Amino acid sequence: MSTNLTAADRALPRLHGYWRSSAAWRVRIALNLKGVEWSATPVHLVRGGGEQRQPAFLRLNPQGLVPALEIDGLVLTQSLAIIEYLEETRPAPALLPPDPAGRARVRSLAQLVASDIHPLNNLRVLQQLEGRFGLDAAQRRDWYCHWVEEGLRALEKRIAAAPETGRFCHGDAPGLADCCLVPQLYNARRYGCSLEGLPELLRIEAACAVLPAFTAAAADAQADAVAGA
Amino acid sequence: MSTNLTAADRALPRLHGYWRSSAAWRVRIALNLKGVEWSATPVHLVRGGGEQRQPAFLRLNPQGLVPALEIDGLVLTQSLAIIEYLEETRPAPALLPPDPAGRARVRSLAQLVASDIHPLNNLRVLQQLEGRFGLDAAQRRDWYCHWVEEGLRALEKRIAAAPETGRFCHGDAPGLADCCLVPQLYNARRYGCSLEGLPELLRIEAACAVLPAFTAAAADAQADAVAGA
Repeated sequence: MSTNLTAADRALPRLHGYWRSSAAWRVRIALNLKGVEWSATPVHLVRGGGEQRQPAFLRLNPQGLVPALEIDGLVLTQSLAIIEYLEETRPAPALLPPDPAGRARVRSLAQLVASDIHPLNNLRVLQQLEGRFGLDAAQRRDWYCHWVEEGLRALEKRIAAAPETGRFCHGDAPGLADCCLVPQLYNARRYGCSLEGLPELLRIEAACAVLPAFTAAAADAQADAVAGA
Repeated sequence: MSTNLTAADRALPRLHGYWRSSAAWRVRIALNLKGVEWSATPVHLVRGGGEQRQPAFLRLNPQGLVPALEIDGLVLTQSLAIIEYLEETRPAPALLPPDPAGRARVRSLAQLVASDIHPLNNLRVLQQLEGRFGLDAAQRRDWYCHWVEEGLRALEKRIAAAPETGRFCHGDAPGLADCCLVPQLYNARRYGCSLEGLPELLRIEAACAVLPAFTAAAADAQADAVAGA
């Protein structure tokens, strides 16, 4: 870590996110698990055409997507890259196992969610399906649940078959894969997708749900959450 | 590394992929940059409903997606997790910079492509748009190019603005972000997407194109490539 930080650099890490964004939620869990104090700057993804597309946010992240994390004088983007940075700069408690095979397993479980489920279902994609092709709410829900159900069934198979699975996705401490799993299950329920046949994933979700790092990170616990939305 | 490897474990790493799969292509580049000898097992993504959905492949990867890499007695999936494993077990030459800030930057550039462009455009998604909603070829191309063009423009802004950019996406040696960029540009051209306003990305692509690790990994150089397809 640099030793010539400015006063601003020494400020609390600031997470620009949105309460229901799966990607921002992953980072909230990771910060909490690491015991990092942080402050939230909500970015409303719908109001006014989306604050993430306005100049103030685009200066932070030209891609116009949350989350962005201001930390150590840097602006970091992409949830998994942010969590890897936290792991390298704040190693304890570890969110990845120590062995390369275990690390590859956890990263691949995380990426199954972060690359193969979530990108197909986030807000900008649903807006395109509606605006560009006129798909109605039922069709958008079908789309959403297709990817969620296919992806989570594959994840369940991998979790159920592996001796490395423990109380959590990998062993008996929560880690990177759990950071990805929990928000995805919340959003699956939100869209009414089937969670049949996923006993291992639901068991792990329940194990996470009793941990303060997860409860404090939950969508509904955020200052910008809208009750009944 | 384990010292009690079986004969099969000591065999060449075996990459199960498809010539035009961006994700398999990233891993080919990384293996070549690392100087790892490997053998290819083609998985035809279209023939017979897709060999990736057949039992032989599902035993390797229950998710039914390429690539899968058999290496060191393991079966690894998810391209970025595979490349991180190669980086940890075969550190030279490095595909990530040594400093956490640089590593976060390279990973976020890679994930911009691997999470925010490619998953929206791969074969299974285009098949859904056609089969589920009846979108025709022109509509599927619009969809494809929307995500490619939006994503690559954001990537260009980040690359053009950063002092860390060098001959390649990060400094003067090829790395993880370049592994992701090159296949994405190929597939953008394949679908006729606009590459206007991307001078930095095209400059970096040209720098990659003269390196044997990249030329040997190219789609058209693979044994399963189909001329004129």
